[in-house]
Amino acid sequence: MRFTLVHTAHDCAARAGVLELTHGVAPTPVFMPVGTQASVKSLDSMDLAALDAAIILCNTFHLFLRPGPETIAALGGIHAFMQWPRPVLTDSGGFQIFSLAALSKVSEKGVAFQSPLDGSRHLFTPENVIDIQRAIGADIIMCLDECTEYPADFNRAAASMAMTERWARRCKARWEDNNPHDQALFGIVQGGAHETLRRESAAGLAALDFPGYAVGGVSVGESREEMAAATRWATDSLPTTKPRYLMGVGTPEDMLTGIEHGIDMFDCVMPTRNARHGNLFTSTGRLNIKNARFARDDTPLDATCGCPVCRVYSRAYLSHLFRAGELTALRLNTLHNLFFMIQLAVQAREAICNNRYVAFKRAFLQAYNQPDETNEC
Amino acid sequence: MRFTLVHTAHDCAARAGVLELTHGVAPTPVFMPVGTQASVKSLDSMDLAALDAAIILCNTFHLFLRPGPETIAALGGIHAFMQWPRPVLTDSGGFQIFSLAALSKVSEKGVAFQSPLDGSRHLFTPENVIDIQRAIGADIIMCLDECTEYPADFNRAAASMAMTERWARRCKARWEDNNPHDQALFGIVQGGAHETLRRESAAGLAALDFPGYAVGGVSVGESREEMAAATRWATDSLPTTKPRYLMGVGTPEDMLTGIEHGIDMFDCVMPTRNARHGNLFTSTGRLNIKNARFARDDTPLDATCGCPVCRVYSRAYLSHLFRAGELTALRLNTLHNLFFMIQLAVQAREAICNNRYVAFKRAFLQAYNQPDETNEC
Repeated sequence: MRFTLVHTAHDCAARAGVLELTHGVAPTPVFMPVGTQASVKSLDSMDLAALDAAIILCNTFHLFLRPGPETIAALGGIHAFMQWPRPVLTDSGGFQIFSLAALSKVSEKGVAFQSPLDGSRHLFTPENVIDIQRAIGADIIMCLDECTEYPADFNRAAASMAMTERWARRCKARWEDNNPHDQALFGIVQGGAHETLRRESAAGLAALDFPGYAVGGVSVGESREEMAAATRWATDSLPTTKPRYLMGVGTPEDMLTGIEHGIDMFDCVMPTRNARHGNLFTSTGRLNIKNARFARDDTPLDATCGCPVCRVYSRAYLSHLFRAGELTALRLNTLHNLFFMIQLAVQAREAICNNRYVAFKRAFLQAYNQPDETNEC
Repeated sequence: MRFTLVHTAHDCAARAGVLELTHGVAPTPVFMPVGTQASVKSLDSMDLAALDAAIILCNTFHLFLRPGPETIAALGGIHAFMQWPRPVLTDSGGFQIFSLAALSKVSEKGVAFQSPLDGSRHLFTPENVIDIQRAIGADIIMCLDECTEYPADFNRAAASMAMTERWARRCKARWEDNNPHDQALFGIVQGGAHETLRRESAAGLAALDFPGYAVGGVSVGESREEMAAATRWATDSLPTTKPRYLMGVGTPEDMLTGIEHGIDMFDCVMPTRNARHGNLFTSTGRLNIKNARFARDDTPLDATCGCPVCRVYSRAYLSHLFRAGELTALRLNTLHNLFFMIQLAVQAREAICNNRYVAFKRAFLQAYNQPDETNEC
């Protein structure tokens, strides 16, 4: 993996870069669609190519349970399995264990949990999550971390962060030992809402010299201001030459704030989940396609959007499909929302390169948050 | 509308034709995917174009209830609404009233029913189903008929058939009175499982000189042999120069039998419904993609298939998506099954033109019904 900084904004910490990975190149900032079970819900790999997604994320926890890393490896790895030729990132599974598995139990050794599918018992350790992610074969893999809950007091957050750092050392040792697919391993900054801990975590991981870094333990219930602060403390203390990934973020607004604080990579299920609920992004704000006022509206969802849906279908048709419970509605809505997020990152990059990122962000938010009838979600 | 017979088989009643409609040309025999609510379930119009569907069917009953014919007309008709530029056929809604509506009541006047969506009361008459279909704007529209239940004794089937013929006269008068979109109206042969009645119905409608004819009241519980007989009695008594449509049929086997007996057009929800249950057609029989033996099978669903799914994805991936409950599985399975049916009609046409239809049908069924492990559905 090679990361090249192309430009750093003059008016904030935003950066434009190029991430060269085994399966292709991703200009940054970049939004990564989430393909939890080796599929971005309702889309196939040809759809993702049509959206020009540069890199997608898959979830190790889900793929470990089904179809299993051995099956994916036997089929040639995640790229061949999905027929997705471009880069993939896998998380370590830690976050999903805490949110989805029954009876999860953390110890220095790792995280024990029961499968929500069949109740079977498993243990994820810093070492075996590297082995599992090696079998899956993504371009970027993540260290096992403990996603510190919110709120967590200083002592709790400090102990959790320290264990995440010890786990990061063990992950790195395992990865250095055997990395046949030239995968890039990212360390994950924790530390909760505590500046000292965030800075200490970032500095500690930086000393381990990972190919890249993630900011974890965000989007777990804290305020927007706290998320921005946690991001800033981390990016402040991370090397400028390495890519930075803000895990599980987020909304258009949160992505633009993350970029402003020096983040390069984002992922979130929100755009796809909202799409399946009829909640769609446009340049003038969010709308709910169920709304009766769209029943005879023959204009596209967003007149400024060049996505495969806005180029073809009307709000009236999309509204009908959604109200009629048609599966097609879920896919078309998903295509639109993902294109919106992917393009927002592309536009942000262009603004950074032209030294007008802060003005770009302000103009976007002004149009997006205008108090007119279109902001109904 | 213009229908040209290109070739009639030497060894059976099969025909190859060309159906020229307002929105395009459909070579026959042809399979029409069913887009009940102005959407073939899980697909969009670009998908249908990728499958090279020549004509699709939409259901008047569903579109009448939601979004309503006035809305579709206000948006420029069904083609503009769906952004489907090719031909569309709408049924008259009669069949759906009998199967889906609450408290339907047939009289000479028409069919009264309650909406399953909101309980509102409506009356479909031979006249207003023409008006409704005119507003929707399909290329081919259907007369209101009473789909005679199975079994029905001679007297019941005779009375029902006679009313369908009286309704056909009223439909034709309304259509002749006002046909601004150059829509083609088809009459529907009824008569149950009774040869005399089927022949009488066909002859009676033939005397009315419709642009085309459908065989209705099939696929309602009768045996495969009874369906073939009802088809043969009808096509025997219909003019050879007009297109013939076997309503709601069917399986690959039933379509090939219909073609053998001189049918030109088919529609059925079975290929799409089966797809959503993981039940897939291949040249060597049906398979259930859930089956564990596909978990590491990196071959396509059908090595002889050129569909957008078989060209890209493995059985292993499709099996994983289906078992994981991914929405993408429903769409990919649907694409494959529809391509199979559309192509089967295309191959049948080629065989007819080459005077080898009976041999083609026999060879297809031999491979499709072979008693090996792949026929598991």
